[in-house]
Amino acid sequence: MAAPDLAPLKVAVAGLGTVGAGTIALLAANGDTIAARSGRRIQVVAVSARTRGKDRGIPLDGCAWYDDAAEMARTADVDVVLELIGGSDGPARAVIEAALGAGRHVVTANKALLAVHGTAVAAAAERAGRVVGYEAAVAGGIPIVKALREGLAGNRVDRLYGILNGTCNFILSTMQATGRDFDDILAEAQALGYAEADPGFDIDGVDAAHKLALLAAIAFGTEVAFDAVAMEGIRHVSALDIHHAAELGFTIKLLGIAERTGQGIRQRVHPCLVPSDAAIANVTDVFNAVVAEGDHVGRSVYEGRGAGAGPTASAVVADLMDIASGRIVPMFGVPASHLAAPVVAPAADRVGAYYIRLTVVDRPGVFAHIARILADESVSMESILQHGRAPGETVPVVMTVHETTEATMARTLARIGDLAEVVETPRMMRIERL
Amino acid sequence: MAAPDLAPLKVAVAGLGTVGAGTIALLAANGDTIAARSGRRIQVVAVSARTRGKDRGIPLDGCAWYDDAAEMARTADVDVVLELIGGSDGPARAVIEAALGAGRHVVTANKALLAVHGTAVAAAAERAGRVVGYEAAVAGGIPIVKALREGLAGNRVDRLYGILNGTCNFILSTMQATGRDFDDILAEAQALGYAEADPGFDIDGVDAAHKLALLAAIAFGTEVAFDAVAMEGIRHVSALDIHHAAELGFTIKLLGIAERTGQGIRQRVHPCLVPSDAAIANVTDVFNAVVAEGDHVGRSVYEGRGAGAGPTASAVVADLMDIASGRIVPMFGVPASHLAAPVVAPAADRVGAYYIRLTVVDRPGVFAHIARILADESVSMESILQHGRAPGETVPVVMTVHETTEATMARTLARIGDLAEVVETPRMMRIERL
Repeated sequence: MAAPDLAPLKVAVAGLGTVGAGTIALLAANGDTIAARSGRRIQVVAVSARTRGKDRGIPLDGCAWYDDAAEMARTADVDVVLELIGGSDGPARAVIEAALGAGRHVVTANKALLAVHGTAVAAAAERAGRVVGYEAAVAGGIPIVKALREGLAGNRVDRLYGILNGTCNFILSTMQATGRDFDDILAEAQALGYAEADPGFDIDGVDAAHKLALLAAIAFGTEVAFDAVAMEGIRHVSALDIHHAAELGFTIKLLGIAERTGQGIRQRVHPCLVPSDAAIANVTDVFNAVVAEGDHVGRSVYEGRGAGAGPTASAVVADLMDIASGRIVPMFGVPASHLAAPVVAPAADRVGAYYIRLTVVDRPGVFAHIARILADESVSMESILQHGRAPGETVPVVMTVHETTEATMARTLARIGDLAEVVETPRMMRIERL
Repeated sequence: MAAPDLAPLKVAVAGLGTVGAGTIALLAANGDTIAARSGRRIQVVAVSARTRGKDRGIPLDGCAWYDDAAEMARTADVDVVLELIGGSDGPARAVIEAALGAGRHVVTANKALLAVHGTAVAAAAERAGRVVGYEAAVAGGIPIVKALREGLAGNRVDRLYGILNGTCNFILSTMQATGRDFDDILAEAQALGYAEADPGFDIDGVDAAHKLALLAAIAFGTEVAFDAVAMEGIRHVSALDIHHAAELGFTIKLLGIAERTGQGIRQRVHPCLVPSDAAIANVTDVFNAVVAEGDHVGRSVYEGRGAGAGPTASAVVADLMDIASGRIVPMFGVPASHLAAPVVAPAADRVGAYYIRLTVVDRPGVFAHIARILADESVSMESILQHGRAPGETVPVVMTVHETTEATMARTLARIGDLAEVVETPRMMRIERL
């Protein structure tokens, strides 16, 4: 296919890590098709990274080199600046501000920055009359920003949930497949490069919360409200939990859930038990999945790789092609000034079923004490499992209880935790029948 | 949210059946949000249908009525004509030609027409400088045209497959859930309104082939080649097949599969056995699913309702919002003149594993005869199941065989069918380990 006659779209890349190098590689590999589909070529003409000279296995001939990424964003003769540095402030923010200030479009994979500054960035982009593309910030292998913002745009979305962190999904699904425990699999994930040396952002749910806050802003037309996401990670999920959950017909997944309630918008990220035959229970390994429930479309499901050079580069290039083709969408679906301040539904009002794991001393009367507290709090037990007996020793006990409020559950668990026979802090996970 | 200042996008609707009425209802229900997201209101100002006066439960006040849809497309003062009449020629085609001829955009749900005339329609749209949107033509609840044409546009897609007909999926998954037979469930589907009185388009695979041909054109950048789709329906799938497949670890689905091969593009629609733990095996009821495999993104999966007023209207409105926002994409991803004539890979060259069901007279020596033919043809048996014995009577026998070519399989089955002990035409289904 001949390259079309329009001037190429000129791009500066700030950050040549996995995603930066992957993007340049993709543009080189599929350049002709991309030009045919975009109506013009997409050309990387300037790059900036921490270390010059390093062999990254990608063609950088003819690219201008900048030591200072913000300087590049301000002065290079380009149409678009790719921000692939990361971090919610510092150099990444400086690059985005410099690029918009100089009238250039921005494409970024930076969920941390947008989760914190997204509404302000959207306003700055509109003032500059430029686009900030961020498909790569949420589940690279799934064009979910486009799906929500354009494909489902005719719908009122009332609930949106998904597996938004590939590292956690790898850990949980490998725990399930092997029966091995959390620390063990985390170490394996680190060895495979799926988890950082400091894995906190992933396993404490922060990364998933960043992405959820962005998707919720699009779905509900509200300002990005990362601070309002209730967050719990997967550090306390044990092999025992996974085993018992399976016995009860559930699979444990770290989900991000955003929903419209009578009290406002509720956003939360936590491990939860989902029915093992639910589609989302069968999303394994480093895959992500997102489910959007629209008033007309019904349930719409998306699944793909969450991270890695290829999927993330695919998302970056899709944003570049939209810009090359002149396809413009406000960052969160409506102009920034139209985004509503979200009314935050209190997490304590959530009503649902729960899974509880206790470590108790195996002696007569302990169940009576627990049952007494549940009855007092009007919490109705659904099932209870104790595997093995060890009179006088400690044993694990797991229970599920029927629907009650989060506040009631917290109070109930505190009271159970105070019992003499209960020797560790009770662990609780939510059951979501999605 | 206040409606923006831009002039509204004026729409004429040709056809007020389920989808036409659903679209008008959606635009009425979510008009404010749609206006905020599109930057302007979307207003239906003219309608045409076979019967005037009928109560369709939707607001038509202020809409001009036309008895002649093509006349409306030509003369009404509108920006877009919605073609929701259906049929590959006749009035639907006249409406689309009249609309483009008069310089109006078109949005259609008409897969039959586009599967046959798609390339010509794309060329006509480009000559007119107008858009023909058809998201609603393929899996309404899944924005798959947008995902392929924009979201994954940076990728070379090598294979694409999916459950593209909700009626067949309803029939097969209900057969699986209940153990009941095909005719019985088809009658139920007709009673529920899921299948037409003349169900041929659905159950013979024609509808799925229409959709597959459209998706393949986008994925591979080729002219729409509906004639090149090898097609088989689900009439011959029996409760026994479903039962035996399950026993062997498979689920039977009607899939459309389009793939790039060394010999060219291969497109086929047929019932096949997929591993029961594959994601696509668990897509049930009237849901559709599409899997695209891109060279950078990897496997990307989409699932949603395939038909019905709400999902289809959701897709129609997404196309209208793209037009309202000035977002333009060539119909099949690249300009019509750039679409390559597809080189068609011969169906007979397909290499794969197969499931075979025979009805044989239960007497000594029958297996030896069958095994002799398989050995002659170098076809390697994987498993064989005969349930129950009935000496001298006919019994069903099912087998699976390892990979071989479609041509070899056809020859082998013809020879087996000629055996005196084989009393019905052997039935074959392909095994796809996707």
